[in-house]
Amino acid sequence: MTAYNPPAQDVAFILKHVLRVQDRQDPANYSMVDEDIIDAVVHEAGRFCRDIVAPLNTMSDQQGCTRHADGRVTTPEGFAAAYRAWTESGWGTLAQPEEWGGQGMPHALFTVIEEYLNSSCAGFTMYPGIMAGAVATVEAAGSDELKAAYLPKMVSGEWLATMALTEGHAGTDLGLMKTAAVPQDDGSFALSGEKIFISGGDHDLTENIVHLVLARLPDAPAGTRGISLFLVPKILPDGSRNGVSVGSIEHKMGLHGSATCVLNFDGAKGWLLGQPHQGLAAMFIMMNAARLAVGVQGLAHAEHAYQRAAAYALDRKQGRALGQRPDPNSAADSLIVHPDIRRMLMDARAFAEGFRALVLWSAVQIDVSHGASDPQERKRADALVSFLTPVIKAFGSDRGFEVAVNMQQVLGGHGYVTEWGMEQIVRDARIAMIYEGANGVQALDLAARKTAKDGGQVALGFLHMIAGECEAADPSLAFIADPLGKAVHHGEAAVKALLEHAGANPVDMAGGAYAYLQLIGTLAVGWAWLQLASTAKAMLDAGEGDAAFLEAKLATARFYAEQQLPLCTALRHRVKAGAGAMMALTPEQFLRG
Amino acid sequence: MTAYNPPAQDVAFILKHVLRVQDRQDPANYSMVDEDIIDAVVHEAGRFCRDIVAPLNTMSDQQGCTRHADGRVTTPEGFAAAYRAWTESGWGTLAQPEEWGGQGMPHALFTVIEEYLNSSCAGFTMYPGIMAGAVATVEAAGSDELKAAYLPKMVSGEWLATMALTEGHAGTDLGLMKTAAVPQDDGSFALSGEKIFISGGDHDLTENIVHLVLARLPDAPAGTRGISLFLVPKILPDGSRNGVSVGSIEHKMGLHGSATCVLNFDGAKGWLLGQPHQGLAAMFIMMNAARLAVGVQGLAHAEHAYQRAAAYALDRKQGRALGQRPDPNSAADSLIVHPDIRRMLMDARAFAEGFRALVLWSAVQIDVSHGASDPQERKRADALVSFLTPVIKAFGSDRGFEVAVNMQQVLGGHGYVTEWGMEQIVRDARIAMIYEGANGVQALDLAARKTAKDGGQVALGFLHMIAGECEAADPSLAFIADPLGKAVHHGEAAVKALLEHAGANPVDMAGGAYAYLQLIGTLAVGWAWLQLASTAKAMLDAGEGDAAFLEAKLATARFYAEQQLPLCTALRHRVKAGAGAMMALTPEQFLRG
Repeated sequence: MTAYNPPAQDVAFILKHVLRVQDRQDPANYSMVDEDIIDAVVHEAGRFCRDIVAPLNTMSDQQGCTRHADGRVTTPEGFAAAYRAWTESGWGTLAQPEEWGGQGMPHALFTVIEEYLNSSCAGFTMYPGIMAGAVATVEAAGSDELKAAYLPKMVSGEWLATMALTEGHAGTDLGLMKTAAVPQDDGSFALSGEKIFISGGDHDLTENIVHLVLARLPDAPAGTRGISLFLVPKILPDGSRNGVSVGSIEHKMGLHGSATCVLNFDGAKGWLLGQPHQGLAAMFIMMNAARLAVGVQGLAHAEHAYQRAAAYALDRKQGRALGQRPDPNSAADSLIVHPDIRRMLMDARAFAEGFRALVLWSAVQIDVSHGASDPQERKRADALVSFLTPVIKAFGSDRGFEVAVNMQQVLGGHGYVTEWGMEQIVRDARIAMIYEGANGVQALDLAARKTAKDGGQVALGFLHMIAGECEAADPSLAFIADPLGKAVHHGEAAVKALLEHAGANPVDMAGGAYAYLQLIGTLAVGWAWLQLASTAKAMLDAGEGDAAFLEAKLATARFYAEQQLPLCTALRHRVKAGAGAMMALTPEQFLRG
Repeated sequence: MTAYNPPAQDVAFILKHVLRVQDRQDPANYSMVDEDIIDAVVHEAGRFCRDIVAPLNTMSDQQGCTRHADGRVTTPEGFAAAYRAWTESGWGTLAQPEEWGGQGMPHALFTVIEEYLNSSCAGFTMYPGIMAGAVATVEAAGSDELKAAYLPKMVSGEWLATMALTEGHAGTDLGLMKTAAVPQDDGSFALSGEKIFISGGDHDLTENIVHLVLARLPDAPAGTRGISLFLVPKILPDGSRNGVSVGSIEHKMGLHGSATCVLNFDGAKGWLLGQPHQGLAAMFIMMNAARLAVGVQGLAHAEHAYQRAAAYALDRKQGRALGQRPDPNSAADSLIVHPDIRRMLMDARAFAEGFRALVLWSAVQIDVSHGASDPQERKRADALVSFLTPVIKAFGSDRGFEVAVNMQQVLGGHGYVTEWGMEQIVRDARIAMIYEGANGVQALDLAARKTAKDGGQVALGFLHMIAGECEAADPSLAFIADPLGKAVHHGEAAVKALLEHAGANPVDMAGGAYAYLQLIGTLAVGWAWLQLASTAKAMLDAGEGDAAFLEAKLATARFYAEQQLPLCTALRHRVKAGAGAMMALTPEQFLRG
């Protein structure tokens, strides 16, 4: 089986030709980015992931993590060495703040590495993957003392972190959580309670682990308005062990390399991050970063699965071509001759390449929202990122899983057995639809908070922007611009239906929320394809670039237009239908007799 | 967690009220069926599956099958005892031919048991699940001596069977197979070769195993026209061990209770079934039965997953209802109040209940095709079954898997960890889309052999029948009859597009085949819902039956009409689009640089 190959040509095309990040001078840190830097990230970071991280993938799935009798947790063989290599490589500090030892480069560049890492070994990536959000949270909410004590080692990767939210009875509904934080005389707090599903809750990669923990102060109001955020290190500043221990490691469907822990806090010492009872706002700094990263995971799994399936389809001979046979003397042709195999592979390309462009564009918008010189531009970018965050998280993880399942299908029976690696990708990819807010919760966020709340302003603005680009498109791009323009009308109608539901009966809005998210996702990726096709066309006309690569972009854009955009009609219908039929049954009618 | 509960009320409603099988006198064996017999199957066989088979499910996934150093294969603990109970129960012989010791009842009744068994423990069901097809194959193609020697013990369940088709280099493309059969002086054949992916290739449930093996005679023409079928027992009539051995057991994503073997034939003694070089035709008797059974597996996984998710959604409290709160004093409401949870549960019901009705109707058609007194009626039923077989196999397994994934989503993080059992259902359900002909192969079969070959006659006849029932429907059923009637037009347009493609360029037909299958599946289940709704409405009007149950049917029919039927437009577009964009890339363009 061909090993994972970082999609360097595709990433470079998006960064250099579609987004032209080397030409940006604003935000200020973009002035550091030239084509050499892009090449270094695209190729050198790719090499690191391929050579150091990807070899861990299969073995870590089989071996998993172990909690020993003394409570220690060990990760799969090779993880600790690979993590050392990661911190030494410097890639982890690329987009971290210069003030704390980072390189201060754009988030957009680090997003490329996030994709590569997750394709290479998602279980390994769970450990460093959380650090951008953890650093941002401590930076935004920590006292000067906490920042000075923790950020340099978090940025360098000497220490890792967790986000400790979930409790056994409180998953999505954080308002139900019970972990208690009791103020101490020295200004610290003593935390007691049990957290579950804590990724990297303990491990042998770093000496210290910085737990960011949601808990309640004694005077806390009920519900989510009574939650505070605390920094609770595994090892206290005096070198002693804090009162945090691992109760057990969860047995999961996949992602076995990631130690998912039940964490017990027994009077553990912690310090408040931000204001009392404002913990959720502080945690959302981390959560939003994590949600975008989960979308990138979906992309990474799709890309990895695609590569393995494409290699198999080129190699494996089964059946004969329906039309002209490539090799009349052989008893069978490669799977790649079969239209239905092509359909699955093209769908994978159409998702991975289009979604990659959308994600990298969004990452640039994050940089703009943080650092552009014009406050209006920052505000506009922030609104777009906020709107697209649930879409990237949910649409990316849904489609990433779906693509992984289809790529498993390309291998037939070999896709179902362990040795070909495909079934692991499916198992690993499944969790992305659940964690950091299940995809149904993302849909409700998009519908209620990101669309209905502002009367659809940002949503319609986004759709109008797409419509405008469709109208302005070169006639040679009509094969995508026309159907995309029509599909945008379905999007607009869906926004209007959603707003009506929101006014009349929010239950109907919620009933259509999932279809609405799928519709926005389908349009957003369609828009990315219009841009990819437009750039490819311009380069081909100018005689620039790799013609085979650029022509494949045009063909894939056409495939997307033919196969995915027609779904928008049905999705609009679903948004309009509301929740009447969904809510008609009594709870008891759901049980079987 | 609530254990699996056979959906007896739903099955009884379909058999007694929708299909009214107790009123049929033709085929002759339907005259044996009265309401008591239906109740016995629906309830008593359900009890057997729930009490004896379902308790094996979790443990068998964890334990799997073992090949010991001496080559013996053992199944998970409890399988042998449960299998003994199964043969003693008599349920296995229900629809087997009376001539060989069976009870000769309709296939439709046994289909109910197939669903129950697969919901209870799919890994266990793999062993007896193959027997209906194996018996039919030996009955149709075996010599009188072979029938007398093997059928009584196969029917009684004293011996089990396998279908040994696949070889390492020859999966879907059976024409490439190499296993050789050399004629012996005594009229038997000596078989040598390696078969892979053989379900139940060896085990400890029965003393003897009857392998039905495809192989080539020395004078065989190349390709599929040179394949013959042989009966190769594990134990020879003289009590000695035949030259068949297990090379290894595959490590699979799921279905761990089923021993999937590499089988080595080393001059193993076998006897020809049917004519030389006509093995594929004989094997297809078995294969078609297996394909329908795989569709039933999809249904079974969906039902099982639904039940677990519904029980969880009723029990687990997270978040608050958007509208009126069922319990204003509690800090959170059950998940069942949330429209997005309802959406997933209703989708599961809409698939499981509608597809169950379609499958049971098809099973009656199988009985009609075998045993109706009128040859025209037999022929018509046979054509319909032949048309719907790939749809039931592929649409059933696709949607069954999709529902299992959605039901896993209802449990959030608990769906991803092993202890709640949901991730096992997803892993077990995945294989159904692959084995017995991958779903892309089913789509091609539907498009080419079952639609284009007869100029769309059966396909259009099926669609016209649905259209007629939509027009004749009571106005109170317009909520489903109208959208279904419109959706059928998309189906007709798709058939026409497919026929045009078939004439002009079969590659375009193949490119749209998958969407075509999804379209026919969506319409067929929609048609089932029209019948379910129509029956429910009539009973409600007459004041008969369980009103809550019947009203749920009407609500679920409406949900199906609102959520699933709108997809038909997009699917029609895909059929029309053909394969142009799919085939545009060179094979090399599929590789990443």
